[in-house]
Amino acid sequence: MALLRSYVSGEWHTSAEEGVPLHDATTGEEVARVSSAGVDMAATLDYGRRVGGPALRELTFHQRAALLKALASHLREHRDELYALSAKTGATLGDSKFDIDGGIGVLFTYGSKGKRELPNSTVYVDGAVEPLSKGGTFAGQHIATPLRGVAIQINAFNFPVWGPLEKFAPAFLAGVPSLVKPASQTAYLTARLVELIIESGILPEGSLQFIAGSVGDLLDHVTAQDLVSFTGSASTAQKLRAHPAIIRNAVRFNAEADSLNLSILGPDAKPGTVEFDLFVKQLTSEMTVKAGQKCTAIRRAFVPAELLDAVAEAASARLAKVTVGNPTAEGVRMGALASLEQREEVRRSLKALLDAGSIVFGDPEKVDVVDADAERGAFISPVLLKADPERAEPHEVEAFGPVSTLLPYTSTEQLIDYAARGEGSLAGSIVTADTDFAREIVLGVAPWHGRLLVLDADDAKESTGHGSPMPQLVHGGPGRAGGGEEMGGIRGVMHHLQRTAVQGTPKLLSAVTGQWVAGAPRTISDEHPFRKSLAELKVGDAVVAGPRQVTQADIDHFTEFTGDSFYAHTDPEAAAANPLFGGIVAHGYLVVSFAAGLFVSPEPGPVLANYGLENLRFLTPVKVDDTLTVTLTAKQITPRVDQEYGEVRWDADVTNQNDESVAKYDVLTLVAKEKA
Amino acid sequence: MALLRSYVSGEWHTSAEEGVPLHDATTGEEVARVSSAGVDMAATLDYGRRVGGPALRELTFHQRAALLKALASHLREHRDELYALSAKTGATLGDSKFDIDGGIGVLFTYGSKGKRELPNSTVYVDGAVEPLSKGGTFAGQHIATPLRGVAIQINAFNFPVWGPLEKFAPAFLAGVPSLVKPASQTAYLTARLVELIIESGILPEGSLQFIAGSVGDLLDHVTAQDLVSFTGSASTAQKLRAHPAIIRNAVRFNAEADSLNLSILGPDAKPGTVEFDLFVKQLTSEMTVKAGQKCTAIRRAFVPAELLDAVAEAASARLAKVTVGNPTAEGVRMGALASLEQREEVRRSLKALLDAGSIVFGDPEKVDVVDADAERGAFISPVLLKADPERAEPHEVEAFGPVSTLLPYTSTEQLIDYAARGEGSLAGSIVTADTDFAREIVLGVAPWHGRLLVLDADDAKESTGHGSPMPQLVHGGPGRAGGGEEMGGIRGVMHHLQRTAVQGTPKLLSAVTGQWVAGAPRTISDEHPFRKSLAELKVGDAVVAGPRQVTQADIDHFTEFTGDSFYAHTDPEAAAANPLFGGIVAHGYLVVSFAAGLFVSPEPGPVLANYGLENLRFLTPVKVDDTLTVTLTAKQITPRVDQEYGEVRWDADVTNQNDESVAKYDVLTLVAKEKA
Repeated sequence: MALLRSYVSGEWHTSAEEGVPLHDATTGEEVARVSSAGVDMAATLDYGRRVGGPALRELTFHQRAALLKALASHLREHRDELYALSAKTGATLGDSKFDIDGGIGVLFTYGSKGKRELPNSTVYVDGAVEPLSKGGTFAGQHIATPLRGVAIQINAFNFPVWGPLEKFAPAFLAGVPSLVKPASQTAYLTARLVELIIESGILPEGSLQFIAGSVGDLLDHVTAQDLVSFTGSASTAQKLRAHPAIIRNAVRFNAEADSLNLSILGPDAKPGTVEFDLFVKQLTSEMTVKAGQKCTAIRRAFVPAELLDAVAEAASARLAKVTVGNPTAEGVRMGALASLEQREEVRRSLKALLDAGSIVFGDPEKVDVVDADAERGAFISPVLLKADPERAEPHEVEAFGPVSTLLPYTSTEQLIDYAARGEGSLAGSIVTADTDFAREIVLGVAPWHGRLLVLDADDAKESTGHGSPMPQLVHGGPGRAGGGEEMGGIRGVMHHLQRTAVQGTPKLLSAVTGQWVAGAPRTISDEHPFRKSLAELKVGDAVVAGPRQVTQADIDHFTEFTGDSFYAHTDPEAAAANPLFGGIVAHGYLVVSFAAGLFVSPEPGPVLANYGLENLRFLTPVKVDDTLTVTLTAKQITPRVDQEYGEVRWDADVTNQNDESVAKYDVLTLVAKEKA
Repeated sequence: MALLRSYVSGEWHTSAEEGVPLHDATTGEEVARVSSAGVDMAATLDYGRRVGGPALRELTFHQRAALLKALASHLREHRDELYALSAKTGATLGDSKFDIDGGIGVLFTYGSKGKRELPNSTVYVDGAVEPLSKGGTFAGQHIATPLRGVAIQINAFNFPVWGPLEKFAPAFLAGVPSLVKPASQTAYLTARLVELIIESGILPEGSLQFIAGSVGDLLDHVTAQDLVSFTGSASTAQKLRAHPAIIRNAVRFNAEADSLNLSILGPDAKPGTVEFDLFVKQLTSEMTVKAGQKCTAIRRAFVPAELLDAVAEAASARLAKVTVGNPTAEGVRMGALASLEQREEVRRSLKALLDAGSIVFGDPEKVDVVDADAERGAFISPVLLKADPERAEPHEVEAFGPVSTLLPYTSTEQLIDYAARGEGSLAGSIVTADTDFAREIVLGVAPWHGRLLVLDADDAKESTGHGSPMPQLVHGGPGRAGGGEEMGGIRGVMHHLQRTAVQGTPKLLSAVTGQWVAGAPRTISDEHPFRKSLAELKVGDAVVAGPRQVTQADIDHFTEFTGDSFYAHTDPEAAAANPLFGGIVAHGYLVVSFAAGLFVSPEPGPVLANYGLENLRFLTPVKVDDTLTVTLTAKQITPRVDQEYGEVRWDADVTNQNDESVAKYDVLTLVAKEKA
């Protein structure tokens, strides 16, 4: 591999300069060179806005979700090639899977969540209609629409595949084009990933651009419609956050920075308990996976003071068994750091930490390696420290390698105080079988954390682990962790959308959202809307059915038939004493059953099933001899991208003879796209 | 009134310095003096964190909501006093009501929304449980807990009551103490408001502090747990956003800045139409309310080119009727600007605007005033301009007074392009009877707007107006408008909470959230949970009821009784052809009716009513002779603060003889706090 290429403005761009050499973490050999010299950054942003944005915005959320899924499948076919390149970054096969399979998994999850949790349209409807008037002619509805700029994604060196993909997936699903900029050290792996993506032809042109090398003057050109998300060091995060163009334009800036993540051993978890072993195993594993180069790795390991020696001993025993060396060699459990510079940085941080403590295991200057040269490769031993938690260093200094510090505590209150001294973390874990202790700690430290994991004998087998951000859950944390929030399922999509409150008539709100809103016009025709396929049905199509009287005999009969003999349906005296009813009332289930009997269209047709009901509220008691009418209105129509049918949500409003609503709810049906 | 006092660290603080004089906008007379000299800013923040935060966090969301409501009622009793002070800011009685009643209205809305939309607990449960494992022993749940710092609220001079209250209400409801800092010019009104609040004794001590005067070194002391929200000029917003402590600690910073808000007249709204008149009336009213000193006021009035002269004429005629003068004098429609400095600023901005256009109405240097001295008071005439929309000035220069600019357009596409040149606005309005046009514009300009209002003959009577932020809706906007988001109902509360993903066993999640989660332990005892009052019932209390077989006769009978003769219940051949059923199935409504018959406890008791159902999904078809069992589990218990009962949400799981779930849903009941 020679000079890495950028993919900008619809073309592969090779720099005219010779570029900076990138080295194999194990052998020190040159792997590739990188330079973005000659890339016109303003033109790149402009291309994303002009070409990528409009192409994405033509697609619905479901269409974008389907492309993410297709992309995930495509990349899965090319995993082996990526694993091989990944080894050059110092990663073992296990490390590579964490990065590569993890990244592909994010695409799958967003593909699936986009389909299940977003509408099959281009406008996201956020929250309920807000009534703003008594007469009902004026109401509000929040919508969310894609920002018209580019999502600039600046990634860290430690996850060259997962990093770009976890930022790209929510942006793409939102309808915002991405500009991916990896850290140079491991950019050759991201470069190959991007080649695979572009060559696949799956994505609309302009929806993904790539800069190999420095960003140059890129940030000078950002506008309020662009976004910047960054993963990396706290100091770089601060520099970017204060960039004049970002400040001037109030650009959405999301940072995810290293933090002093904690793991806590509960006082109940004495040696010999399952939880004691889980704690030690997780600690040593977090230290050695990716050679500890994980933003989420455990840096502060809090243990009950009286258990410190036992933990130190058990952890040391496990660490002693970790084989370090060439990540492709058999039996190697931990590879190299990403570069010799990283090793220098880790050693510097270790010096600072040693001011407040001492070494329990390992030698920062010496490590035995398998099938490699310990000096040419960026190898370092796992180093476990213990320190005084009253000192500042353990809470402030992060050695970004296979390094953790044991810290003793003596009370829950003290522990919560120590936890806060980290000033904001991405992830924390609590290992305990004591639910009360876990609850107290979780609620005590939650304001400083983006994610907290509670590990015990019951969930250990299925736990995804302290260090693994999940696409379903938020990844980020306050303060030192950058103050950002990524993924979290659809939350990460929302980050790329502008929320706008729209005020107007129900008719207007309905036109804007594509969903029928109470008070908007209905269309009532001779044809029952259940006779219409998805292709024919329109939002607002309605049927009014009834009236049907509810007799005492009906109520008695329903009681007997269902067995629901609640006194309000059966005992006039007791029912009269009920503060809400004041007399015999019909069963709520009778009301909705009768309503279904009224609005049904019996013969086979496009409506395949009623698969659910939502937001049912009984609003006015139905008394004996009340007369019911039901109005059913097509509210939302969601054809499925990959099926011959789709969902139709109907607004059901059951009223009595005085035009009062007695029940309101949404009926959920599956309807065929075309008539059989 | 003499030197304004600060309320910090539990005491009223009077500066030792003589302070800066504040002048009556109409007469120029000194109203008060202001100085924060001597306030220990670090100690003030610390007091909020140590005293106010813990006091607030002891209360549930519902308890805080009830205090907001009580505070609103208290302030409503003192409106007249506030109106009188407000007049000194140059405000007419109408202007004062906008500010004061508007602010009190925000408190009422948050009181009501807190009760209806938040749990009666201290932990907010955000979104659904996220399954993370096949076996169900490991899952995720987002919670949100109050930040442990202080919400620093820096307000603008134009809304001395509404401004502080709209920031305070969501912070208080979230459980975060506020530190209110008004703009000096009109701080005497905010100072009196705060006195009324503190003297009422309604709020927990430390939950509201107040600084009269400059913030001094306040911001140097902010941490990642504090928040800063600012309303004011874009330039100050930028300065604050780049403050080293805010950058270093990734402090949540929310800005709401002046913007070049637009109003658009639709091509359909020719002279003589209702919408033409609505547009002109709204434009002139937005120019003159608060003498145009509203962040949301219309600065850019886009009209079809051919209607420009007609609009100019109609608007000028209305403006000519606006009486300017002493805001307390009879017949005065527009008072003074807040200060002579503000008038100078407006005149400077007008000069810049006139480079790109010309005056349609008014003279920036001359105005006739009633009952006042036009030079001593900060009076200025309403000034309507017209300008070339291809020039930059109309999209960039904001004259923060009674000033708007008419701008011609010739196509929808061009209009959307012009709108974007404002680079982000708080509010926009579209006046048209053409729903298609409105939809196209709304979706075209939404990414640049926090709020958009569509006005027509149908909603005009009930519309709350272009310039009125509503507590139910977000207030803020991208880019030039500050990139922030305030209010929006519960969204504004969330801004003060840290979202944390919690991972663990269902039992652990249940313990943390106080809500039963599928997979968590159930408690089944001899006593039916429907026999337990709120005081006795515990989350997880459950009843297993059944079995009951569903026979062909039952299905036939239900068909006949309800009239629901859908073919899948009646026609074996057609039902067999249904891709989802493959044969006769029982009605979904029959299933839930039978389930109710199984879990009911008939005699009078603590359960008063089943008032609704949520998230019902039919998961497996129920075939003839299937046998149903239902498990009902108390999921969430919400005692009402102000009633003798509360809500209990039950998890209902109906299973068949193979232990497959056939239906899952939430049953909503009202249950008495104590047994009768």
